[in-house]
Amino acid sequence: MIHARDGAARAGVLHTAHGDVRTPAFVPLASNATVKTLRAAEVAELGYEMVLGNTFHLFIQPGAELIRELGGLHEFMGWERAIITDSGGYQVFSMGHGSVAEEIKRRRDPRESMVLAIEEDGVRFRSYLDGSERFMGPETSMEVQAALGSDIALAFDECTPFHVDREYTARSMERTHRWLDRCLAWRREHGPREQLLFGIVQGGVHRDLRSEATAYVAAAGVDGIAIGGSLGKEKAQMHEVVGWVLRDLPGDPPRHLLGIGDVDDLVHAVGDGVDTFDCATPTRLARHGTALVPDAQRRWRLDLGRGPHRTERVPIDEDCPCPACRDHTRAYLHYLVRTGELTGKRLLTIHNLTFMARLMRGMREAIEAGDYAAFASGVLDGDAGAALNARAAG
Amino acid sequence: MIHARDGAARAGVLHTAHGDVRTPAFVPLASNATVKTLRAAEVAELGYEMVLGNTFHLFIQPGAELIRELGGLHEFMGWERAIITDSGGYQVFSMGHGSVAEEIKRRRDPRESMVLAIEEDGVRFRSYLDGSERFMGPETSMEVQAALGSDIALAFDECTPFHVDREYTARSMERTHRWLDRCLAWRREHGPREQLLFGIVQGGVHRDLRSEATAYVAAAGVDGIAIGGSLGKEKAQMHEVVGWVLRDLPGDPPRHLLGIGDVDDLVHAVGDGVDTFDCATPTRLARHGTALVPDAQRRWRLDLGRGPHRTERVPIDEDCPCPACRDHTRAYLHYLVRTGELTGKRLLTIHNLTFMARLMRGMREAIEAGDYAAFASGVLDGDAGAALNARAAG
Repeated sequence: MIHARDGAARAGVLHTAHGDVRTPAFVPLASNATVKTLRAAEVAELGYEMVLGNTFHLFIQPGAELIRELGGLHEFMGWERAIITDSGGYQVFSMGHGSVAEEIKRRRDPRESMVLAIEEDGVRFRSYLDGSERFMGPETSMEVQAALGSDIALAFDECTPFHVDREYTARSMERTHRWLDRCLAWRREHGPREQLLFGIVQGGVHRDLRSEATAYVAAAGVDGIAIGGSLGKEKAQMHEVVGWVLRDLPGDPPRHLLGIGDVDDLVHAVGDGVDTFDCATPTRLARHGTALVPDAQRRWRLDLGRGPHRTERVPIDEDCPCPACRDHTRAYLHYLVRTGELTGKRLLTIHNLTFMARLMRGMREAIEAGDYAAFASGVLDGDAGAALNARAAG
Repeated sequence: MIHARDGAARAGVLHTAHGDVRTPAFVPLASNATVKTLRAAEVAELGYEMVLGNTFHLFIQPGAELIRELGGLHEFMGWERAIITDSGGYQVFSMGHGSVAEEIKRRRDPRESMVLAIEEDGVRFRSYLDGSERFMGPETSMEVQAALGSDIALAFDECTPFHVDREYTARSMERTHRWLDRCLAWRREHGPREQLLFGIVQGGVHRDLRSEATAYVAAAGVDGIAIGGSLGKEKAQMHEVVGWVLRDLPGDPPRHLLGIGDVDDLVHAVGDGVDTFDCATPTRLARHGTALVPDAQRRWRLDLGRGPHRTERVPIDEDCPCPACRDHTRAYLHYLVRTGELTGKRLLTIHNLTFMARLMRGMREAIEAGDYAAFASGVLDGDAGAALNARAAG
C-alpha cells in the first residue's frame, strides 16, 4: 500500500503474514538463517522488519524438510517478522556461470558445488556439502520456499550474467517466463495462502527484452515484481535499466531490486520507484573491516583496517547512535579488524545496519515530506550526515 | 577482604582501582582487548567484574605505548571495571617449550613466533607479527603492564612445563624468584601506585619446591599470589598441588589460580581457598560448539555439533536465563555450529559465560550460607542444575 509519492519515489507499507514492512526498505541477508554475527532479536532492535533467507543454502543445509518439521524458518531462527526467500536460481546459476558464490567458497573447502546440466526442467548440480547430485527447478524452489514458510517467495529464474550475448539473454528470459508459469501453477495447486509470490524481470541490458519481461511478469498474476539479472557494467547503465522496468510497469505492484545495496544506487533506485532491496554488501563490508559513513567523498566507505585509523580516538561517526560509535574509537576498531577479532566484525555489522536503517528511514520521511530530491542530493553530494541527522531529529 | 569462610573456602571482595571484584570469581579472557565476540559493556552485563588482558599479545600488537597514548587498556577497550594482566611469561615460554599457543597458531599463518634465547636477563624471541626480534624480561613485563594500566599485574615468571625434570624445575623456580625481586624493584622505582602486583608460585609437582616457592613469594611483599606452572598430569594431582600451596601460605593474601577453568577443578580449588581463576576454556569451547551444562554425567559439556541435536526443539538448558537458551533451540544452535556461523560462536560464548557466572555466584552464596560442601557435591554429583537454580532463586 502506497501512502505517499514524490515524483516516482513512493513510501508505503508492504503487508505480509508476519507484519508490515515500511518501504522503501533495505532487507538484510540472513542467508544461513542468521544475519551474520546477530541473533534475530537484535536485527529487530535495529529496526528491520524483513530479512532475506537463502533458499539454495537452506535447501542444501539443513534441508527444507527439517526446517518445516522444526516449525518453519521463522520459528527455526527465532524471527517473528517478515521473511523473503530468494528462488535459489542465483546460487544455482552462479556455479554454472563459473563464479561460485564467494561465501560458499570460503566456507567449503575442496569440493565446490558444480552444475551438471541446465535443462528445461531445471538444474542438476553437485552439492558443496557432500558431493551428492541434487536437482532444483521451479517446482522444487516453490516446494522449498513453502517448507521454509517465507512471507514472500521469488519465482525460480535464471540470473542471466553480463558476459553472455543478446541471443542467450533472450532465450534465458523466455525460459524464466515458462518457469514463472510453472511456479504459478504449483502455487495454485499447493501454495500456502499467506505466501506472496514475486516474479523476476530479466532481460539483461537490452531495452526491448526488459520491456517484454516487464510486461510478461506484470501480466502473469504475481503479487510483486523483482528486478534481477545483469544490470550492466556501470552504475549509469544500472540506473537506466532499472528506470526502463519501472516506467514500463503497469499498476502499483511492490518492486524489489535484487542484490543492490550501495548508497548511491539505493538513492537513485528509490527515486525511480523501487520499494525494497536486499544486498550482502553492507554486512559483508563490515566483516571485512569497512564501515559505512555519510561521506560521498569516500564513496560512503571507511576502511578501518587502514593505518591512519590506528591512533584515532574518535568514533566512526559522531552522530551515529550505534554501540560501535557510542562506546568505541576508530583506534580500537582498527585493532579489532587487524587482529581479525569477531567482536570487530560484529560491531561493524551493527554499525552498517544502523547506517542503512537510518538511510532508509531518511528516504521514507523525505518522500512523505515531499522533499526527496533535496534529501537525495544531500546524501549524494556529501552532506548525508546532515541529511540523516535532520531526519533522525524530526 | 574476606567476609565469610566455610572450611578452607572463602568469600570476599578484592578491591581494585576499578572497583570491587566479588570472590570467588571466574575471570574471562580478553586476550586481545576483547572477550571474543562480546563488547565490553556486554561482559559487564553478564555480571563480570574483572577480565584478563594478555600482556604478550598486546605487547606485540598494537603495542603497549600505543595503548598508553590511547588512555590505557580500560579506555582502549571501553571496559570500566577491573583488569588483571598476565606477565607475558606463559606465551613467551610456551614458544620455547615447543607448544606455541594454539590461538596464535590459528591466527598467524606462516611465521610462528620463536624463542631465540632464554637468559638470566629475560627472553629474546621473534615476533609472530613481523618476524622482528623482540625482548621481554621482568622489567619489560612490568613496563608493559604499567602502560596497559591494569589493576593487577603479574610478576614475570617462567611457566615451567610438565615434561622437564626436577632439576630444571628447581633452577627455573629460582630464576622466577630472582625475576620477582626485579619486578618488585622496578615497581618501587616506577610502579603506578594503584596497580597491585601478584607473585607467581612455581615449583611443578614437587612438594618441597612448591613449599619453597610459596614461602618465597609470600615473604616478598606482593599483594597477592598466583599459582602457576605444571599442576600435574591428572586432576587429582592438580588438586594435591594446589592444596599444598594454599596450606603453606601464610596470612590471607588473594589467591589466583592461573589457566584453570573446568567445573570440577573450580569447585575443588574454591573448596581449598582459591579466590579467582582465569581460563580460555569456557569461551574457547563455545567457539568450537560446546555448551556448558549442569550435568556431571556429561562432564558439564554438551557438544552441539553432534548429530542428535539436529532435531532437538529444546534449549541447551531450560533453567538458564541467557538469550541462547531463552530464544533458541538446540536444533538451531546445532545448525549454526555446523555452518560455522559467527552468531553461533557468540550465542555459545554468552551461554558459557552465563553458566560460569551462575556457578561462581552459587559458590559465593553457598560459602556465605555455610553449606559449601553440599553445594559442591550437588555440582559434582550431577545435580548442578538444582544447585544453581536454588541459588539463583535465593
